[in-house]
Amino acid sequence: MFDWIDVRSQARAKAGLARRLHPRPATSAELDLASNDYLGLSRDKRVAGAAAAATLRWGAGSTGSRLVTGSTELHTELEYELASFCGAQAALVFSSGYLANLAVLTALSGPGTAIVADQQVHASLIDGCRLSKADVAVAGHNDPAQVTHALATRGKRRALVVTESVFSVDGDLAPLPALAETCGKHGSGLIIDDAHGLGVRGDGGRGAVAEAGLSKAPNVLTTVTLSKSLGSQGGAVLGPSRVIRHLVDTARTFIFDTGLAPSSAAAALTALRVLREEPELPTRCREVATQLSTRLREAGLAVSEPSAAVVSVRAPSAEAAVAWAEGCRAAGVRVGCFRPPSVPDQISRLRLTARANLTEAEIDRAVQVITETAPR
Amino acid sequence: MFDWIDVRSQARAKAGLARRLHPRPATSAELDLASNDYLGLSRDKRVAGAAAAATLRWGAGSTGSRLVTGSTELHTELEYELASFCGAQAALVFSSGYLANLAVLTALSGPGTAIVADQQVHASLIDGCRLSKADVAVAGHNDPAQVTHALATRGKRRALVVTESVFSVDGDLAPLPALAETCGKHGSGLIIDDAHGLGVRGDGGRGAVAEAGLSKAPNVLTTVTLSKSLGSQGGAVLGPSRVIRHLVDTARTFIFDTGLAPSSAAAALTALRVLREEPELPTRCREVATQLSTRLREAGLAVSEPSAAVVSVRAPSAEAAVAWAEGCRAAGVRVGCFRPPSVPDQISRLRLTARANLTEAEIDRAVQVITETAPR
Repeated sequence: MFDWIDVRSQARAKAGLARRLHPRPATSAELDLASNDYLGLSRDKRVAGAAAAATLRWGAGSTGSRLVTGSTELHTELEYELASFCGAQAALVFSSGYLANLAVLTALSGPGTAIVADQQVHASLIDGCRLSKADVAVAGHNDPAQVTHALATRGKRRALVVTESVFSVDGDLAPLPALAETCGKHGSGLIIDDAHGLGVRGDGGRGAVAEAGLSKAPNVLTTVTLSKSLGSQGGAVLGPSRVIRHLVDTARTFIFDTGLAPSSAAAALTALRVLREEPELPTRCREVATQLSTRLREAGLAVSEPSAAVVSVRAPSAEAAVAWAEGCRAAGVRVGCFRPPSVPDQISRLRLTARANLTEAEIDRAVQVITETAPR
Repeated sequence: MFDWIDVRSQARAKAGLARRLHPRPATSAELDLASNDYLGLSRDKRVAGAAAAATLRWGAGSTGSRLVTGSTELHTELEYELASFCGAQAALVFSSGYLANLAVLTALSGPGTAIVADQQVHASLIDGCRLSKADVAVAGHNDPAQVTHALATRGKRRALVVTESVFSVDGDLAPLPALAETCGKHGSGLIIDDAHGLGVRGDGGRGAVAEAGLSKAPNVLTTVTLSKSLGSQGGAVLGPSRVIRHLVDTARTFIFDTGLAPSSAAAALTALRVLREEPELPTRCREVATQLSTRLREAGLAVSEPSAAVVSVRAPSAEAAVAWAEGCRAAGVRVGCFRPPSVPDQISRLRLTARANLTEAEIDRAVQVITETAPR
């Protein structure tokens, strides 16, 4: 029946593309440079404490679709606080950022719409495009001129431009002002995935969309995750109230999914409050990223220029990337290892993530281990 | 820009199809006949306690993709226990059942595959079909003869049949043995969404797939949610080890999503342990469903014959269904209200769910309120 799976599996193993899960223990001496817990809030006592208390108070699950029993007052509070923090009119919380992206793309498009997507957007945005029934055009990476051309020559009245603010693999920044300008000029909506910007960029971590002054733009929708800087799980869409109401009425991944667990809503809510109290956390995170990047480049590695927490280091091949990441791990440093098909350009790399609570000694250790284990 | 949204919104309001969130407080005297918390485990002290403890021990989030830092030993333990409980070779946990369904459909299909899906399958399975790039045929509801015809006349070598075990809206049971037989005969895989069967049907709640003796079939994949009987959040795919390994390597909604929060993994794991200790819970849940159904039918309502926890009561129109559900709510009973597009046949209904821990007095009250508020 599924014999073809074995054939594919052998081919992947041969190409160095087989994947393995490495379950981690609750505590470990391993230095984490791989997670998306950019501010270290996942284990913050206030955040974890609030999540634990919420579980005891509200139960372990939300028990149903957000439209039936899955909306608690906690969800409403989180949506209010998210919108208020980021400066948007309204917000809607999902059980995953993946589902938030599918929601916004499918609910705002259809056969009468042209979508123009950056060629390096996240898998969830690509799947959203595939589900959208729209005409989908792919624009070169961070190329507003190509976006403008696609908008100007589109065959449909309605249009949506799709980008990330900070791209997940290389951590580079999209030209949001130029994209917003061309979208305004050509009557297009603009969907910005700010998963890697929230908590790291903008005043006090309000995100790259707020930083670009676009949070209240009537044609801009922002998607975020609650699972990165906010240390929790889930995702959200932020934007004009009428669009948020439209998602409640029509987005399949909202209507037909169980609501986010109360504990995760409470964790994200508390993380936002911590961010308000400690607006220096995002700055510290970016400083750590710059330090990592500068020092690894000085050591002769091919390192990206970080615009947020992500620092990407190129590897000569998929096999070399795996061996390098395993070398780091053997030396007590966990780094991300991205290979096809998880990379937009087929180039394998280590993906390092800065964390606001990394100490100078930890940064020293990370730089030393990554340099010493680098492929010759 | 989004002016078309207002037009649609007005049309929906006119047709009685506008949706509203009704956030609930942490505690309330309202009687819940709407959630999918079939065994009442979401607020079970052992389940919620384990979730709270896990948050404090592991942090509020899993911090990354399951392939990077998002797999903890808790996830592995849950996967082992899920597979073992349901009698499958292996299991893989997702942050949502929606994403588990997208994973199995996309990773096991492609342009060389024919998919035959029951016409009433869940939105997540439909979206999975849309993303699959396969030839998709829709078979009549619970009609194995149509499935056989579609398999026998397909133009692709590989094939997948897609069904739910217990359908989510009417709670009726799929003819699993007949579907398995025709799939075996015609060299097809069989994907069964057991979201509403797990914890309610089968020996000790092992689900409708186990009940049909199909848990170990080499061509059967089962998807489940952790957010219904198990009182938590998330979903899983269960099946042959080689298929599970294939999902780890190729399923986009696994690779590119943040792992399930540790607290939700712990809650589901503990719920499975409670089920092992209290195998009478599923029986009690089905007894409550039968009681509700019988008594409401005796009162003259158009009620489905429940095969699990779901009891569906037809309403004359979408507006009448909304008014009926609101009448129940005003009288202190929360029921589900399903209208287009959330119903497969355009018929609006109340959707009641049995819960193992409903008391006789609560059942009396529910029957009385639903009967008294019924449309004339």
